[in-house]
Amino acid sequence: MDIKFSGFIATSLDGYIARLDGRIDWLTSKNATKNKQSANPNAQSNLQSSDNDNAEDYGYRRFYDSTDCLIMGRNTFEKVVSFPDWPYYNKRLIVLSKRLKEIPDDYQERAELYSGSPEMLVVDLQSQNVRHAYIDGGITLQSFIKAKILNQITITQLPILLGRGLPLFGAIGQDCHLELLNNKSYESGFVQSTYGLRY
Amino acid sequence: MDIKFSGFIATSLDGYIARLDGRIDWLTSKNATKNKQSANPNAQSNLQSSDNDNAEDYGYRRFYDSTDCLIMGRNTFEKVVSFPDWPYYNKRLIVLSKRLKEIPDDYQERAELYSGSPEMLVVDLQSQNVRHAYIDGGITLQSFIKAKILNQITITQLPILLGRGLPLFGAIGQDCHLELLNNKSYESGFVQSTYGLRY
Repeated sequence: MDIKFSGFIATSLDGYIARLDGRIDWLTSKNATKNKQSANPNAQSNLQSSDNDNAEDYGYRRFYDSTDCLIMGRNTFEKVVSFPDWPYYNKRLIVLSKRLKEIPDDYQERAELYSGSPEMLVVDLQSQNVRHAYIDGGITLQSFIKAKILNQITITQLPILLGRGLPLFGAIGQDCHLELLNNKSYESGFVQSTYGLRY
Repeated sequence: MDIKFSGFIATSLDGYIARLDGRIDWLTSKNATKNKQSANPNAQSNLQSSDNDNAEDYGYRRFYDSTDCLIMGRNTFEKVVSFPDWPYYNKRLIVLSKRLKEIPDDYQERAELYSGSPEMLVVDLQSQNVRHAYIDGGITLQSFIKAKILNQITITQLPILLGRGLPLFGAIGQDCHLELLNNKSYESGFVQSTYGLRY
């Protein structure tokens, strides 16, 4: 059974997932809270449902619940570790990093380290009956696109220009054509588009 | 009477208006011509109506006809000059450039050179009863955003990642909040969003 690999990420209109120093304050500022819709910055670059059940979560919870495994890089992991609450209970979390020596003691029950390539990870996950993997973080998403593994990505564009920051996309070596699967806008001014990737 | 300054431009999903060498072949390739919709690359970074009246023009002609003046930088002008047909008959064209010495002989009837700042140009245009100016080209759009002059921008995102190229947006010094005015998608997979800019 093929595994589906998906991304679900918010960007500024100029394509950044965070400021240069990693801050995501703009996800929860004026734009994000307009019309009482809010984005809870539990993860570096996601729109997550807040504790308020009435809050608009832009489809994040539904996406999150459809996945059985979360894969992120060291940068995103270190950001998540800095949050007051752990957002990923009951979800297998794989940290993809060649540089990280080991998962910090406090998180050894919650995350596993993988130092191989995305291609090797796919083979391992296939033997472990993973069905839908959630890929997070700009660099990790880029590496899964470069490796032609990512199947789908949902991008929620906020109506803000940051001018500079950490980009969602990077160099990929060749054009990558996508298929628009869904597009909708929210009263908050967020524009959400889901694309399938064809290689 | 205040002048309205608007942009109308196509980008790749990763935010580029052209390849690094200025090529816009991806605007008219597989993605653009799917479902018989086509984008005619008469200008460096626009979707323009083609000679085929049935072709989807993504609202370009309506936008173009609503403007009484077109302002672009040297880069875009030199690209336009390289096209076999002149796309801007019956439209006042101002080339904004400090480096260009003069408009080439063949185009002196068609374009005027302006070497001042965007702010100075606004003052001049106000005295000339211009109502709606069409700002084109990445660098020119950036300078009109930096100068807090641009009022509206329509971005048509094509479902393609180029990996690198000439970006629509650049450094602006501070966050710029926008207001989503319209969002729609096309069968071609193009996603078009119109934003108002607030300063």
